[in-house]
Amino acid sequence: MKTDDITELQDGENMYQLMKKLYPICRSITGNGVRETLEIIQELIPLQTVEVSTGTKVFDWEVPKEWNIRDAYIMDEKGNKIVDFKENNLHVVSYSIPVDKEVTLEELQEHLFSLEDQPDAIPYITSYYKERWGFCITHNQRQELSEGKYRVYIDSELKNGSLTYGELIIPGQTDKEIFLSTYICHPSMANNELSGPVLTTYLAKWILSQPREYTYRIVFIPETIGSITYLSRNYKTMKENIVAGYNISCVGDERAYSYLPSRDGNTLSDRAALNVLQQNYPDFIRYSFLDRGSDERQYCSPGIDLPVASIMRTKYGQYPEYHTSLDNLELVTANGLQGCIDIYKECIQLLEKNNKYKINCLGEPQLGKRGLYPTLSTKESGKIVRDMMNFIAYADGQNDLIDISNIINVPVKNLYSIIEKLQQNKLLSEVNQKEIIGGQTSAR
Amino acid sequence: MKTDDITELQDGENMYQLMKKLYPICRSITGNGVRETLEIIQELIPLQTVEVSTGTKVFDWEVPKEWNIRDAYIMDEKGNKIVDFKENNLHVVSYSIPVDKEVTLEELQEHLFSLEDQPDAIPYITSYYKERWGFCITHNQRQELSEGKYRVYIDSELKNGSLTYGELIIPGQTDKEIFLSTYICHPSMANNELSGPVLTTYLAKWILSQPREYTYRIVFIPETIGSITYLSRNYKTMKENIVAGYNISCVGDERAYSYLPSRDGNTLSDRAALNVLQQNYPDFIRYSFLDRGSDERQYCSPGIDLPVASIMRTKYGQYPEYHTSLDNLELVTANGLQGCIDIYKECIQLLEKNNKYKINCLGEPQLGKRGLYPTLSTKESGKIVRDMMNFIAYADGQNDLIDISNIINVPVKNLYSIIEKLQQNKLLSEVNQKEIIGGQTSAR
Amino acid sequence: MKTDDITELQDGENMYQLMKKLYPICRSITGNGVRETLEIIQELIPLQTVEVSTGTKVFDWEVPKEWNIRDAYIMDEKGNKIVDFKENNLHVVSYSIPVDKEVTLEELQEHLFSLEDQPDAIPYITSYYKERWGFCITHNQRQELSEGKYRVYIDSELKNGSLTYGELIIPGQTDKEIFLSTYICHPSMANNELSGPVLTTYLAKWILSQPREYTYRIVFIPETIGSITYLSRNYKTMKENIVAGYNISCVGDERAYSYLPSRDGNTLSDRAALNVLQQNYPDFIRYSFLDRGSDERQYCSPGIDLPVASIMRTKYGQYPEYHTSLDNLELVTANGLQGCIDIYKECIQLLEKNNKYKINCLGEPQLGKRGLYPTLSTKESGKIVRDMMNFIAYADGQNDLIDISNIINVPVKNLYSIIEKLQQNKLLSEVNQKEIIGGQTSAR
Repeated sequence: MKTDDITELQDGENMYQLMKKLYPICRSITGNGVRETLEIIQELIPLQTVEVSTGTKVFDWEVPKEWNIRDAYIMDEKGNKIVDFKENNLHVVSYSIPVDKEVTLEELQEHLFSLEDQPDAIPYITSYYKERWGFCITHNQRQELSEGKYRVYIDSELKNGSLTYGELIIPGQTDKEIFLSTYICHPSMANNELSGPVLTTYLAKWILSQPREYTYRIVFIPETIGSITYLSRNYKTMKENIVAGYNISCVGDERAYSYLPSRDGNTLSDRAALNVLQQNYPDFIRYSFLDRGSDERQYCSPGIDLPVASIMRTKYGQYPEYHTSLDNLELVTANGLQGCIDIYKECIQLLEKNNKYKINCLGEPQLGKRGLYPTLSTKESGKIVRDMMNFIAYADGQNDLIDISNIINVPVKNLYSIIEKLQQNKLLSEVNQKEIIGGQTSAR
Repeated sequence: MKTDDITELQDGENMYQLMKKLYPICRSITGNGVRETLEIIQELIPLQTVEVSTGTKVFDWEVPKEWNIRDAYIMDEKGNKIVDFKENNLHVVSYSIPVDKEVTLEELQEHLFSLEDQPDAIPYITSYYKERWGFCITHNQRQELSEGKYRVYIDSELKNGSLTYGELIIPGQTDKEIFLSTYICHPSMANNELSGPVLTTYLAKWILSQPREYTYRIVFIPETIGSITYLSRNYKTMKENIVAGYNISCVGDERAYSYLPSRDGNTLSDRAALNVLQQNYPDFIRYSFLDRGSDERQYCSPGIDLPVASIMRTKYGQYPEYHTSLDNLELVTANGLQGCIDIYKECIQLLEKNNKYKINCLGEPQLGKRGLYPTLSTKESGKIVRDMMNFIAYADGQNDLIDISNIINVPVKNLYSIIEKLQQNKLLSEVNQKEIIGGQTSAR
Repeated sequence: MKTDDITELQDGENMYQLMKKLYPICRSITGNGVRETLEIIQELIPLQTVEVSTGTKVFDWEVPKEWNIRDAYIMDEKGNKIVDFKENNLHVVSYSIPVDKEVTLEELQEHLFSLEDQPDAIPYITSYYKERWGFCITHNQRQELSEGKYRVYIDSELKNGSLTYGELIIPGQTDKEIFLSTYICHPSMANNELSGPVLTTYLAKWILSQPREYTYRIVFIPETIGSITYLSRNYKTMKENIVAGYNISCVGDERAYSYLPSRDGNTLSDRAALNVLQQNYPDFIRYSFLDRGSDERQYCSPGIDLPVASIMRTKYGQYPEYHTSLDNLELVTANGLQGCIDIYKECIQLLEKNNKYKINCLGEPQLGKRGLYPTLSTKESGKIVRDMMNFIAYADGQNDLIDISNIINVPVKNLYSIIEKLQQNKLLSEVNQKEIIGGQTSAR
């Protein structure tokens, strides 16, 4: 892959436009919102969709009933819809069962959710595994509710159906895989979570356009039940082939870069992410696996143990708008998305190039006769070829590119041209790491 | 063993009463003082006593002559006993040979020991391996001695006999052992050392009352020569079976908690002690093995290499009253003893429960269907089951309980109920560490 | 080797006198200056000289043409030699081709080298691999040059010949080797570099006078091309036999002690150097291998991987006089050289004695019966034999002398007498490390 592609592309605006298109759809862990979302993404990348029937056993879980909703509101005695699902789909507790009755304010209160300390925000509430109904409103509105009768109406359906996910396998020259996962189960929220699917869509589009060695496995799934479902059907192949992976979530605001490790903490995914973040944004926030909260919980669970880390902007749970109506299209920006897709592209580029390199001669090579060294030795000239000499000193067939970059403290993107020059001069060999990972013979 | 036993028991007062009973006895590394001490302890726990004859070769050493003393004093010209062994047995240098003669003050001075910088304290002095006689007095008293004749009288006996120690083997379900050692060779001093034997007595009593998997080997020995003697007779079995052990000394004052590692520094004994101290008293004092000074010198010597660490209150050599008459029954308290026995009980409980645990399913288990998870997902609900989820995330069959507690930063006592719940739900297996330690098949 | 030899010798003055003798000679990477230098050194130690013909392939390089120079000057229109090689051999760019012509000031300027920010210094410039001619002058002088004609005259010769180096193999009781390398290619400069050859000469003289177990391989070579040439002829034997080595350079001023690691960073050479420096000069400067700049570049290159570190005074490139005429006989002192040879002697002594030691008994030995322990135990007596007891505690057959010194924080020179006493008492065995290094059977 070519370095300059990274800066050439201006995906930020495209990603933001896609997010605007997907934003109004009411997604949940199952149902037509997910299908509609995947259809729009399929206009950009050749995603396959898979349906898994309600009741299917998936590890310790089973695929739940499918939930769909058409309308919902709370109407006051005067016939005003004081809360309307059509205005904001966060108003209904996700997976609410149907209801259509008159209730007193007291009865209504038991089904209302609001945030006292964020009185302007509608909270995002789900109840996937216990059947109930409920509405989410701002605390300000709740305070103003007067005694009286209210009609509560939810036109939803909870019945046997299926769970839907999207999958894209982009073949490479080896069957060793890089894995990308994002989730498409959140209704109208932006950083968490539409930023993940839109970034992943454009990252997939970019990968499709590039020469590549690795195969890429990219999934758009509902969180938790989706990753469990996907793993239960694919984990043996995944454990055999995946060498690095990322869970892509919360990648759209501009306030921070952050990193959440795999459980192991020192996988290839972690090493690449840390190298790239350290070089580009040394003040990035470094979380512990104890701070996890997304599908790395499944991917890194005991016995699965996949190398899945996360590079994020502001992490879920770490910003005030999280899981409320305030996590909206103003919080996420084209810039925010662009910054994060660039980091992911750098990581993928690094993973593609992360061989163990070995210098072909004993002793230092004579760079001078190849025009790679200044001919006049002066007090200053030593520094000029220092990066190249340092690369050579550590190109011992044991260190991979990430190791060398870390040891000599030179960004990998500055090393690509050095590698190219040395290879052109037949001074450098690749000790092919990709084929030996996991002890498997690859197709290359 | 049940957690609540620890807080139910109030051993502190019992231990203090035992100490008061043992305090007046004149102990040394051999002799009737040791026997009398062990007899009193035998009223509480079924200790076996062993006699090893003078002259027996024990590693590089041999068992010394047995020493007993009946009386001793210094009498002035007027017939006043100005120094009287019956008032304080520290007045006589331990292992003093008999003497009965008149001496000048000048001659007397050569046999007197006092502390210039602690003029009120009688020092504790021993001369096990060179035959001499001597008296220990306060420096204040020494300053007031007038010229004249003094009668020095020591009615002691140094002759072939035996070295006495106590041993208690409490069988468990495996022949793998936890080892506890304390010493009973110090005359009337309290923190160093009667606190060790009295705490060990009540700890043994508690172990006897508990269900247990490990076998316990508990010894009451004279320091140094006792541990060398005991090791020379038992070290092969000990090396084969002991998985953890503690040398119990200086466990009675209230000024500090401290820890002295095994020579290795990372044995099971060290890991358990550090985990429990860190959780309960994070400001405990952490010594180096270079600060050692008790029987870990023998237990951790090259070729013996037993995993023996120490949890102490204020360590020997680290308090002004150490090895003087000021280390008395006012320095040690029921509270001080109670605090330290509680820590030892927690350690033993942890050692008993310290398996490697493995979650039985792939992916996270569905806690909700088992009533282990809140059914309504709110912004806050994630934190509620965090400890359980973190335990599960690291229960990979590789980490033992201490590892998990350290990684997720949750006290082990909070994890016992989580383990119980998960086991009740058949979600958790024990990877049985106890049977595989040392590669031996145990009796379980 | 005996400890007290170190302080007995006063080599500093001798080394300084040798440096004064060698200083005027015009050395380069080849030529008669090197031969003359080696001849003078041969008066002190039985160095063999080796000639390697121009054009010989040495790894990726080939031996260059031999360069010799008889005279050189710049003459002004009045016939004054304004720049004269005979006054300072730095005035000519090393490896300058012959020239004898009249040039304008403008033309001359293209062949002049000076340092604007060090206007009093003549810079040291070389052009080994591109044929050119040039003069080096102070910037002050350059500023004063007036328009006009100048005669430039260099009576040099660049033709097929050979590269010369010196080699001394001092046999020991094992064919395992300690390697010392220094370079003799610099013209009239003192710290970098005549300090290295003069110190190495007197270090070799000392080694010859000492009983020894190791074989010593000592080379005086031109930098870079010399080490590449030497390696290309000897690296297989060197890789098989060398257990530790040092590149000796910049060892003559008094401003600092510094250390540059091998590429590996944790070889025996590194461990010995760090131990000795830490004990003697704990404020020594610790460089990274990224700061390298001498023959460790070749010795530690991938595939060669020799354990070669450097102990220096002020390192090349780290002092203002470096590579100028200011690096002269005032910068280097007898004291400076003496301090550094003492450190190298301590290192060699440590390497010779660095066995793994094992105490011969189980449990602590009874030092008392051997007169190694005070017979009267007092509050203070414990400290007296602490060093010996600590040595014994870690003499487990696993730790070598460097490990023990580091763990117990006692200088190795204080441990030699302890080892001797314990050996005299048959309490200590050597686990012979020298024979097992590299898995080779040695001649001992």
